[in-house]
Amino acid sequence: MHFELTEELVERVELLVEEQKDKELQALLKEYHYADIAEILDELNLEEAIYVIKLLDSETTSDVLMELDEDNREKVLKNLSAKEIAEEVEELDTDDAADMIAELPEERQQEVIEKIEDEEHKEEIKELLAYDEDTAGGLMAKELVKVYETWTVAGCLRRIRGQAEEVTRVHSIYVVTKDEKLIGRLSLKDLIVAKNDQKIADIYISNVDSVTVDEDAEEVAKVMAKYDLEAIPVVDENKTLLGRITIDDIVDVLKEEAEKDYQLAAGITGDVDSDDSIIELTKARLPWLFLGLIGGIGAFLIMEGFEEAFKGEALILFFFTPLIAAMAGNVGVQSSAIIVQGLANDEVKGSVNSRLIKEMLLAALNGLILAIFLFFFVWAAKGEINTAFAISVSLVAVIIIAGLIGTFVPLFLDKRGIDPAIATGPFITTSNDILGILLYFWIAKMILGI
Amino acid sequence: MHFELTEELVERVELLVEEQKDKELQALLKEYHYADIAEILDELNLEEAIYVIKLLDSETTSDVLMELDEDNREKVLKNLSAKEIAEEVEELDTDDAADMIAELPEERQQEVIEKIEDEEHKEEIKELLAYDEDTAGGLMAKELVKVYETWTVAGCLRRIRGQAEEVTRVHSIYVVTKDEKLIGRLSLKDLIVAKNDQKIADIYISNVDSVTVDEDAEEVAKVMAKYDLEAIPVVDENKTLLGRITIDDIVDVLKEEAEKDYQLAAGITGDVDSDDSIIELTKARLPWLFLGLIGGIGAFLIMEGFEEAFKGEALILFFFTPLIAAMAGNVGVQSSAIIVQGLANDEVKGSVNSRLIKEMLLAALNGLILAIFLFFFVWAAKGEINTAFAISVSLVAVIIIAGLIGTFVPLFLDKRGIDPAIATGPFITTSNDILGILLYFWIAKMILGI
Repeated sequence: MHFELTEELVERVELLVEEQKDKELQALLKEYHYADIAEILDELNLEEAIYVIKLLDSETTSDVLMELDEDNREKVLKNLSAKEIAEEVEELDTDDAADMIAELPEERQQEVIEKIEDEEHKEEIKELLAYDEDTAGGLMAKELVKVYETWTVAGCLRRIRGQAEEVTRVHSIYVVTKDEKLIGRLSLKDLIVAKNDQKIADIYISNVDSVTVDEDAEEVAKVMAKYDLEAIPVVDENKTLLGRITIDDIVDVLKEEAEKDYQLAAGITGDVDSDDSIIELTKARLPWLFLGLIGGIGAFLIMEGFEEAFKGEALILFFFTPLIAAMAGNVGVQSSAIIVQGLANDEVKGSVNSRLIKEMLLAALNGLILAIFLFFFVWAAKGEINTAFAISVSLVAVIIIAGLIGTFVPLFLDKRGIDPAIATGPFITTSNDILGILLYFWIAKMILGI
Repeated sequence: MHFELTEELVERVELLVEEQKDKELQALLKEYHYADIAEILDELNLEEAIYVIKLLDSETTSDVLMELDEDNREKVLKNLSAKEIAEEVEELDTDDAADMIAELPEERQQEVIEKIEDEEHKEEIKELLAYDEDTAGGLMAKELVKVYETWTVAGCLRRIRGQAEEVTRVHSIYVVTKDEKLIGRLSLKDLIVAKNDQKIADIYISNVDSVTVDEDAEEVAKVMAKYDLEAIPVVDENKTLLGRITIDDIVDVLKEEAEKDYQLAAGITGDVDSDDSIIELTKARLPWLFLGLIGGIGAFLIMEGFEEAFKGEALILFFFTPLIAAMAGNVGVQSSAIIVQGLANDEVKGSVNSRLIKEMLLAALNGLILAIFLFFFVWAAKGEINTAFAISVSLVAVIIIAGLIGTFVPLFLDKRGIDPAIATGPFITTSNDILGILLYFWIAKMILGI
């Protein structure tokens, strides 16, 4: 029922491009939503994609461009003149327009901006370009519907017809004082339900959520998700209405955030995806692997240090090193993931101490169950009750320490203002590996009295 | 600027509850949004929470209840009579009402439903309860604004005033035929901009996205995110309009999905959070740890198998086992994370073979860089060029194989209809650990000719 990108469709488009059957191609693509056309273009090579883009009408082109994969958009824009880009920009809402321009190289940005004919649009885009992309200002659009508190419902309906035509979707109508300060909101529904001669001042809802222009994008997402808002007005420190953010942009923020955290947990930095080049993927992955290598060398040095002690009879202790390292790593990742998620959802309240005590009990319980199993395995396999005891006791200790580190590190990073998501994954695995192995050898050596 | 849950506030509420200062408490809570009140209640003990809830007006109570932490809501509902719950349910939109009832034990559900006084609301809730919660039917609400194609704009505005009052937010107005089949949509904006005597049939937009009632919730989320929709109508197989889904529910679906994947990658199953009990957290974590333990025992058995071969001179080979295991695990997690994310975003197109070839090249590049570093380290540290060579060559082989497994397993699971997210985390780490160690010993033994 929904659009599905098939190889047949891509091939059909490629064939039409090759044979330059423009009319047929236009007729075919007319059937599809711009987001679908972007998916098709992402599968074509650059020349084909540009051929198709030049064939589309200007409004569709701009929407398609915004939906293209970022790398592909960059390539396509390189092949368009500043004038052509400016024409696309004119079709876009100010937030998308500013995003598209921001992706261009510095000197091209100026060129494109100068070529924008609509002066108001140009000024608004310039204003938006000044905000950091990870703030409310970077997310907001200038398009919104606002009314003055002194208007009547009838006058209001008449006048907002003009404003509304420019705005893709009207969520809320913002009510401002004569000096543009945000004082409330109205929904179109309220306006329709109200009587024609009522004053806006009498019917507006003064309780309006807003965010300030420099607020963090993630914070805006949290507020909108929590209060189920579909749009939120953006104001400056004097409550002057500057723009509005809509929920579809927030959906994108949430998705990107989730992907970033997921990748960090897997030891991948920088927003890469499976279609990126090998060099880019290597840049995102190699540093974490290198960290793992350093950790492995650390483990080697520790094992070498215990070589004399465990040579001969106790050699078997070495053979449990991967087990201990794996358990330390796994427990650390589990604990840190729970804390990172709790922090993201503002669920981690109460003192750090109570967190650590809870994690200690949890780790002790898990560790005990696993250690009992391991004890009987080693005892049955090797018949050495002392060794079995030493390994099992170490396992419990290692799991408890790993759990505590997994809990403490993200809390510590968060307090320091560092993204705690960095703590899950290779960082915690590596440090827990080394510490776990060291602890294991040390406890085993003590218990066995070697 | 936004609400912040402080200990002072919680303590103030607790004190007011203790001293039974109802008036003051009501005045205090009146200042807060229901989502904020829910956050405060989540911090109180059960008795206090129930005391506060009984003090709130009925409309606020129902909204607060929906925002409470699921475990706390369950406890509170246990302490309310069927009649009291039914009263709350009457205040809720049908989708939330059905969700609240669905959480109750089977026999209570019947009791509560019988006590609902509004017959239409009752029937609608019963209908919604029949759908699986992970489908469009489970997400949709019955509240929507619909008009018949034969109406005029003026008549339409007049008549939808009644409908709109019942609907919290009007996104789209759905246009149906006289036998209730969905044929298009209108926005309030379109209606306001249109002339009063125009017929709906002349102004409606026939291009309307919809989902069928049994469609997967994740799929609905994808469609709405892709096309930037804020609401989508739900139809049956005959195109009869059944309900609508709004973007705020989709935001919740996306967040839950992201959290589930993140937890799976960290080796945690079942939707737990940091405030859950130790028993529940153990249930979610222990199975994965047990898997790691089994993997560790496998590694032990492999090492034991090579004991004779490596005793003496080649003992040092054992000391690199944690390094090899860590690298195999890390590479596997990285590759699988990229693929899992690509699959979730429908970005993984093209053949499995080309994916595997790309990952092989990527792993080979990363492996080579790391191996060169390791080679010089071992050579410098131990002065044995043969050993250094054997370990380094094994490392490259292990990394390549680990990358291939990390790529192949999620693709394979996805083809089989299993959630590929299960492949990241402990599952891939454990299998790569064992395979990596085996491969390492085997290659090293061959090269060194032991």
